[in-house]
Amino acid sequence: MKTNIESYLSTMKSMVESKLIELLPNSAEPMSRLEEAMRYSILAGGKRLRPILCIAASEAVGGTIEVVLPIACAIEMIHTYSLIHDDLPSMDDDLLRRGIPTNHSVFGEATAILAGDALLTDAFSVIASHGTSNGIAPSVIVEIIRDISMAAGSQGMVGGQAFDLALEGKEVTLDVIERMDSLKTGALIEASITSGGRIGGASDGEIYYLKRYARAFGLAFQITDDILDIEGGVEVGKDRGADARKKKATYPGIVGVEKAREVAVELSEKAVFALKDFDEKADPLRELALYLGGRKY
Amino acid sequence: MKTNIESYLSTMKSMVESKLIELLPNSAEPMSRLEEAMRYSILAGGKRLRPILCIAASEAVGGTIEVVLPIACAIEMIHTYSLIHDDLPSMDDDLLRRGIPTNHSVFGEATAILAGDALLTDAFSVIASHGTSNGIAPSVIVEIIRDISMAAGSQGMVGGQAFDLALEGKEVTLDVIERMDSLKTGALIEASITSGGRIGGASDGEIYYLKRYARAFGLAFQITDDILDIEGGVEVGKDRGADARKKKATYPGIVGVEKAREVAVELSEKAVFALKDFDEKADPLRELALYLGGRKY
Repeated sequence: MKTNIESYLSTMKSMVESKLIELLPNSAEPMSRLEEAMRYSILAGGKRLRPILCIAASEAVGGTIEVVLPIACAIEMIHTYSLIHDDLPSMDDDLLRRGIPTNHSVFGEATAILAGDALLTDAFSVIASHGTSNGIAPSVIVEIIRDISMAAGSQGMVGGQAFDLALEGKEVTLDVIERMDSLKTGALIEASITSGGRIGGASDGEIYYLKRYARAFGLAFQITDDILDIEGGVEVGKDRGADARKKKATYPGIVGVEKAREVAVELSEKAVFALKDFDEKADPLRELALYLGGRKY
Repeated sequence: MKTNIESYLSTMKSMVESKLIELLPNSAEPMSRLEEAMRYSILAGGKRLRPILCIAASEAVGGTIEVVLPIACAIEMIHTYSLIHDDLPSMDDDLLRRGIPTNHSVFGEATAILAGDALLTDAFSVIASHGTSNGIAPSVIVEIIRDISMAAGSQGMVGGQAFDLALEGKEVTLDVIERMDSLKTGALIEASITSGGRIGGASDGEIYYLKRYARAFGLAFQITDDILDIEGGVEVGKDRGADARKKKATYPGIVGVEKAREVAVELSEKAVFALKDFDEKADPLRELALYLGGRKY
């Protein structure tokens, strides 16, 4: 494996962020406050994991970055909307995200809700408009809109957030946590990967293995994220142990950090194994799994 | 004009409501509270104006109801999400909508926000999935997703709501109100009509005239709605004069009810005139404009 994963991540992150700025609306008054709030959260950093996975999946089957990039950014817009809404006072009531004040702490609750709504809705305009202008076949655009909206909606991410709120303070089993994680973060991660694959021209067989990769990766990522919350870390930017104080059910919270880390590493290896029939173009996907499954930053 | 408009409206309303129930998710616990909240607002009544306009526009160019119906319902899901979010404490802070408690009064703020998010997102799944299974060409599905998402997003409905909040308590001109109304309600009404037209197989020329119809109709509808708010009415289901107490800028609030009513009637006639080259299949659209432009219920 020749890809230098840290340099790959950093190059992709820059490309995604430049494109995101280009894709966001930038009107004159009086809508500018809404747009300012959209830009604030979009530019508030983050790993850009979902768009990078989308790009890497497209490259893995021979797609070019230019074609997939706006779609990858649209997925990041959907992820960002979900963070803005999750942080709201009536939800997780967080004042900090990635070390800076959350959207509603800066712009107020009404504008934060609307900024989330707008990012979600505009993401579909970006997919439809830029998908078309980038020459993606309309049938593929419809498939990825179906995959992404199903992953983000009541049977995916939003359902997972409702599930999570319902579980707060309750005793839960590992199965329930895996189900919640697969809805709340796994579904959109999977859709990022399958969308990238479809845009890159993946066969049905390749989509099948990309899904296997995505499922193992998604769970490994969530477990590692929850370990980081317990152990703290500079890049998390929120208070250490925030989940425990809110009595959020997490995987390492139940099995302990050591066991959870083992599971995350196993899942990462399972993700890599799913790509055994892919050539070296899938190396970034492979290294992403190993890097994030074992990350200790 | 042979269509009996009240019977047409009532038949279409029933068809839309039956299909909406079928399209909404209906899972087992623990997501059922989210889904209950989605159903609550979807089934809370309303004129179903946007889906009926979508169906009528499709019929006007020769489309069949069966093909357009799920898309029409998806637009109603987007409209319903916008009402749930507009009613939130940080927005308009309304306790009643159509005479019954608002979503957040019943389910709490967190679930209401998520129910809105889910209705918006699931609407795109419905368009992509049912559009495909109903045999609508993928290129047409992509066009209507682009039109609807642009009409609903930062440059349309969400932008209009942000604009409206920014204007509260301020002195505004008629131009500003027309711009706000065209964003907040006009854009999605226009997209309902053009989507229906595209699904029904409208030519570019027909889409042009459907847009002219939609713009005149949308403004007439908003003005009539604002007149009803001033004069009160059983079907509005909210306190008479709610806009005035909140100092919301409205068209009749500036020019007075009599003048506003004249303008609404003129706009309705303008809408009808836009359809002069359409045959009798466009009669429901024509009568809808005259009925709603002059409505006094």
